[in-house]
Amino acid sequence: MKERQLSLLMDLYELTMANGYFLDGNADDKAVFDVFYRKNPDNGGFAIFAGLEQVISYIENLHFTVEDVDYLRSLGLYDEFFLQYLTDYHFTGHIDAMLEGTIVYPNEPLLTVTAPLIDAQLIETALLAFINHQSLIATKARRIVKAAEGRAVSDFGARRAHNADAAIYGARAAYIGGVSSTATVLAGKQFGIPVSGTMAHSWVMYYKSEKEAFKKFAELYPDNAVLLVDTYNVLDSGVPHAIQVAKEVLEPMGKRLAGVRLDSGDLAYLSQQVRQALDKAGLTDCKIVASNSLDEYTITSLLHQGGCIDMFGVGERLITAKSDPVFGGVYKLAAVEHEGLCQPRIKISETVEKITNPGKKRVYRIYNQEGYAIADLLTLASETVPALLDNYQYIDPQKPWKHRVFTGCVARELQVPVWHDGKRVQKERSLDEIAEFVQGQLDHEVWPEEQRFDNPHVHYLDMSPAYYQMKMELLSHIDRD
Amino acid sequence: MKERQLSLLMDLYELTMANGYFLDGNADDKAVFDVFYRKNPDNGGFAIFAGLEQVISYIENLHFTVEDVDYLRSLGLYDEFFLQYLTDYHFTGHIDAMLEGTIVYPNEPLLTVTAPLIDAQLIETALLAFINHQSLIATKARRIVKAAEGRAVSDFGARRAHNADAAIYGARAAYIGGVSSTATVLAGKQFGIPVSGTMAHSWVMYYKSEKEAFKKFAELYPDNAVLLVDTYNVLDSGVPHAIQVAKEVLEPMGKRLAGVRLDSGDLAYLSQQVRQALDKAGLTDCKIVASNSLDEYTITSLLHQGGCIDMFGVGERLITAKSDPVFGGVYKLAAVEHEGLCQPRIKISETVEKITNPGKKRVYRIYNQEGYAIADLLTLASETVPALLDNYQYIDPQKPWKHRVFTGCVARELQVPVWHDGKRVQKERSLDEIAEFVQGQLDHEVWPEEQRFDNPHVHYLDMSPAYYQMKMELLSHIDRD
Repeated sequence: MKERQLSLLMDLYELTMANGYFLDGNADDKAVFDVFYRKNPDNGGFAIFAGLEQVISYIENLHFTVEDVDYLRSLGLYDEFFLQYLTDYHFTGHIDAMLEGTIVYPNEPLLTVTAPLIDAQLIETALLAFINHQSLIATKARRIVKAAEGRAVSDFGARRAHNADAAIYGARAAYIGGVSSTATVLAGKQFGIPVSGTMAHSWVMYYKSEKEAFKKFAELYPDNAVLLVDTYNVLDSGVPHAIQVAKEVLEPMGKRLAGVRLDSGDLAYLSQQVRQALDKAGLTDCKIVASNSLDEYTITSLLHQGGCIDMFGVGERLITAKSDPVFGGVYKLAAVEHEGLCQPRIKISETVEKITNPGKKRVYRIYNQEGYAIADLLTLASETVPALLDNYQYIDPQKPWKHRVFTGCVARELQVPVWHDGKRVQKERSLDEIAEFVQGQLDHEVWPEEQRFDNPHVHYLDMSPAYYQMKMELLSHIDRD
Repeated sequence: MKERQLSLLMDLYELTMANGYFLDGNADDKAVFDVFYRKNPDNGGFAIFAGLEQVISYIENLHFTVEDVDYLRSLGLYDEFFLQYLTDYHFTGHIDAMLEGTIVYPNEPLLTVTAPLIDAQLIETALLAFINHQSLIATKARRIVKAAEGRAVSDFGARRAHNADAAIYGARAAYIGGVSSTATVLAGKQFGIPVSGTMAHSWVMYYKSEKEAFKKFAELYPDNAVLLVDTYNVLDSGVPHAIQVAKEVLEPMGKRLAGVRLDSGDLAYLSQQVRQALDKAGLTDCKIVASNSLDEYTITSLLHQGGCIDMFGVGERLITAKSDPVFGGVYKLAAVEHEGLCQPRIKISETVEKITNPGKKRVYRIYNQEGYAIADLLTLASETVPALLDNYQYIDPQKPWKHRVFTGCVARELQVPVWHDGKRVQKERSLDEIAEFVQGQLDHEVWPEEQRFDNPHVHYLDMSPAYYQMKMELLSHIDRD
C-alpha cells in the first residue's frame, strides 16, 4: 500500500466553498465552528468523546501534494490562484476541545475550531469522520462492558469492521470504552493495546480428530490454552476432549487448562452445562469464554439466565455498533469574526432539533458536593464562571420561566486548548490514561441513573442568563433578507 | 500519516495457529478455505461481491517488517524460528474468486484460497474485512439506487463513515453498486469516481443574508449552482431567494439555475411545493436535490407520496449500511491436502445454519434460454459440467428426494484464477467495468423477483449428485475421536 495522504478526505463542497471564500476576499474573516451531536446512541444517557488524537494527527499532516492539486485542477471547478494557494497551505486556526474520553451529552460543543473561514471549512469532513467513528465505538464498548458486569470483554471485530481503519481505530476506541483487549494485532502494535486470541474452527478441523487438535494446542501453549469446543458437539465431544487434554497433557506438566470457548448454540444453557462438567472434573479454575454475535443486550440476557461465562469475545456488534451504527456528530458555524467583531450565527431549518446553539461559547460541567456532575452549562465566551458556585442563577432552556440556582457547586470548564498558532499545545495522553479517565468519570462523577440502558436520566444542558438571552434574540431576529 | 503497512491486520489467533502449524511440521500440508456468507443483508434476494481488488493489493504487499516481527517477539508467544520465517515471508498460495461485481447468494464460495496451511491462515482477517465491507456497501447502494427509480444517487457519507477507509472504499463500493457520484474528494482522486457537491449551511450562514450567499455562489459557479434552501425557511425564504438569484444573476448571464437542495423537513411535502414555485417562476429545468438520512425505505416512501425529487444525496444510511451494518462473510476450512490426498472438512456446530459446504468444489451459474440465472450449482472440483446442459440431473438440498434436471440450460463457472504462483493472473478491471458488469447482470440475468425488497425469491443453490453424496457421507461420519 502506498504512503497515506489523507488530506483530501473532504467533501467536494468544502473545496467549492473555500474557493468561493478565497475569490470573494473573505480570507481574513474568522469563523467559529462547533462539533456537537444531537442524540446519544442506542437511546443511552451519554456518549464518550473519542478520536481527538486522530484529529490532531490529521491537522499536523494537512497539506496538498502536487498530485492532489493536479487532481483538483482536473475537475475544472477551481481558480488557479486558489490552487496555487493550496500548494502552500497549512492549517492556521485554533482548536479547543474536551479531553479525549470525556463523558459527553447532546448539543454541547465537544470541539471548537476558530480559524480563517477557509481553514475552518476544509477540515470539516475529516474531523467528523474521526470523531464520529471513535466516539461511536467507545460509547458502544462501554455499554457492552457495563453489561458484562466486571467480566473481561475482548474485541474480536476486525473481520466485520468497515475496512482496515474501522478495525484498527475501532479497537482503540473500544479500549477507551473499557474493553480489556483486542484480537487485532495491528491495533496492538500501533496503540499498545493488550492482544488476545484463542483458536479458530479451522485448527480443530485440520487435525484428524478434535482431541488431537486440542492436544497439539495445549502442548504448544500450555500456559494459556483456550480450547474452542463447539466445532462438532460441545457437550458430547468438545468438553470431554478438553477435559481429557487438561488431565493427560497439561496436568503432567503441572499446568492447568486456561479456558474453553463457545461460539455457537444456546450460550446460556451450554455454559451452565460446561461449567458443571468442568467443575466435576476438578477444572473449577478453567474459564469459559463466549462469543457469537454478542452485544450489551445478549450479554445482559445471558447473565440474567445464569450463563456461566467468565469472558466475552465481542465482534461484529461492537465493531460496527450494529444496533445504532451512526454517531451523528455535526460541524456547525457558530460565529463569524468580521473586522474584529464577533457575530453569532444560528441555523433554524424546518426540523426543530436542528436549531443550533449559536455564538462563541464556553461549556462547564457542574458538580455537586458529592462530586456528581449534575448538569452542563453553556455561557458566552466573554463570561467568567467562578470555580465555586453559590447562588449562581442559570436558565433551564426547557423551562426558562423557572428561577434556578446552583449552590454549593463546583464548575469545571470542559474544553482546553489543543492546537494554537500552528502547533499542538496539548500534550499527548496515553491510551491507558484516556481509558482510566473514562472509568474514573463513570465510577465517581456520572449518576448511575444516566448509565442505565432503559430510559436513562437526561443530563441537563443549562445556560447562563446572558447566553440564553443572546440565543433568544438571535432567534427572534432571524427574518433575514 | 506514516507509510501504511497493513500486513498485521490479522487476528492474534491467525499467528498463534500459524506458529503451531510451523512447529508441528505441517508446513507442507495445503488447505482449502472458502469465503462465503450466510444471509443477504436487509433480507434481500442477493448481494454484490466486492473488495477483490483490495484483497489482491493486500496479498501483493503482504510482508513483515523488522518492526512487525519485533512487536510479535515482544508478545512472548512465538518461537524464534517462526519469527525468522516471518521475516522472509511472502504468500505462496493460489486464490480463485468470482469476478468483482458478481451477483452472489448465501453459502456459495465467493473466493477460495488454496495454500500451505500457514499462508491460508494468515490472510483470513484482512480478506474478510475487505470483502465484508465492500460487499456490504455495494449491496446497500444497489438497494438505494433501485429505490430511486432512475434518479441519480450521490454518496454524501464520508463524515459518518467508520473512519477514513470506510469513507474511501465505501465510496468505491457504492459506485460498484450503482451510485453515480461521490462527495468524497479522496475517493474521486483514488478511483476516478465522479465527484459532486453543493454548499453547506455554513455558506448561507456566513453571509449577511441568504440572498447574498446565493448570489455569490451563483456568480462563482454559474454553470452548476445548486443552492441549499433550508437554512432559514424553505418556502418563505430559501426558494424565493433562489428564484430571485436565478432571475437577477444567472439569466442576465444566459445561465439557468441548476438546482436547489432540501436537507430537512418533510421532503415529500416540501419538494412538491418547491417544484410548484420553481415551475411558476419558469424554472422548470431546475432540479430538486434531497438529502437528510435517506435510504431505500425513505426514498421509496417519498416517491410513493409524489415527492418531486430529481436527485438524492445519501449519507449515513448508505455509508454505514445502517439498517443492517454487518456483512457476515466467513472464511472456513473446506479441505486439507495431506501427502497429495485431498480430504474434505466440514463444520457442524450447534447452530444448523453454521454447517459448512465441505470440500474442494466448483460453483456454476445456470442460465435458462432467456438468459436468466435460475440457480447456482455446487459440484466436486473433479467433476466437469458441460457448458450446455441437457437432462442434467441435480439435487435440491432442501428437497433431495425429488428428481430434478436442467434442460436447455447454459452453465458458467463463477470462479476464475486471480492469484497463482506468487503473482496476479487476473488483469485489473476498471471500476467502470465492474459497475457496468453489475448493472448488466441486474438488467438481463437476475430475476426481478430476486430484486424486490419484500420477501424476494430465494435463489437456488443446488448440488451435483456426487457433491451432495460427499457432503452427506461426511455428515454421517462426523463422530470423530
